[in-house]
Amino acid sequence: MVRKTTTRVVEGARGGAGSVEFHDILSADEMNGHGRLYAKVVVRPHSSIGFHVHENDTEPYYILEGHGIFVDNDKSRTEVGPGDVCIIEVGQGHSLENNSDEDLVIMALVYNK
Amino acid sequence: MVRKTTTRVVEGARGGAGSVEFHDILSADEMNGHGRLYAKVVVRPHSSIGFHVHENDTEPYYILEGHGIFVDNDKSRTEVGPGDVCIIEVGQGHSLENNSDEDLVIMALVYNK
Repeated sequence: MVRKTTTRVVEGARGGAGSVEFHDILSADEMNGHGRLYAKVVVRPHSSIGFHVHENDTEPYYILEGHGIFVDNDKSRTEVGPGDVCIIEVGQGHSLENNSDEDLVIMALVYNK
Repeated sequence: MVRKTTTRVVEGARGGAGSVEFHDILSADEMNGHGRLYAKVVVRPHSSIGFHVHENDTEPYYILEGHGIFVDNDKSRTEVGPGDVCIIEVGQGHSLENNSDEDLVIMALVYNK
């Protein structure tokens, strides 16, 4: 079966700034209990996903397009761009900031510990 | 932690034609037993991923760039392009053909039933 993603726009995602667009590829139900999010995510210019902790799951970010700042569990800040993989462990936190004038486009997958 | 993907090129993927490039985002070990592949996959021009069945897992394709033919479990053929999600159920098979002169770039996630 071929279908389109479901799109939703979140303002102030995880307490972040501006707007973040989620293009959901799978629903949580379709993930068969292994996770709860699989989406292409567009962090709009001068927007961010606020710092949040993954208590019982993890969420690698994979950068498709654009540039941003990955804030790791220890609050260290790393410039990221296309092809970068941002890994956190279960129990760790992260955020992602787009301080540029272009979209920052990533893949987000949340799966269980 | 920020890192790059691991890249490997497979000739005749699943019995298909030509070359397919896998940019692995997670290793199977890192998927905590929930799946075995999470990668950006480039199906090069006039190349394909051959028909294969997912007995105990499933693998949605999400098309990022380019155009191709998704062959579903029932062998029906659908033209696909950016933003399309190709879903199969556990126990079903699929293939993907790039008959164009451009790369076909997809996200592939294999996770358990």
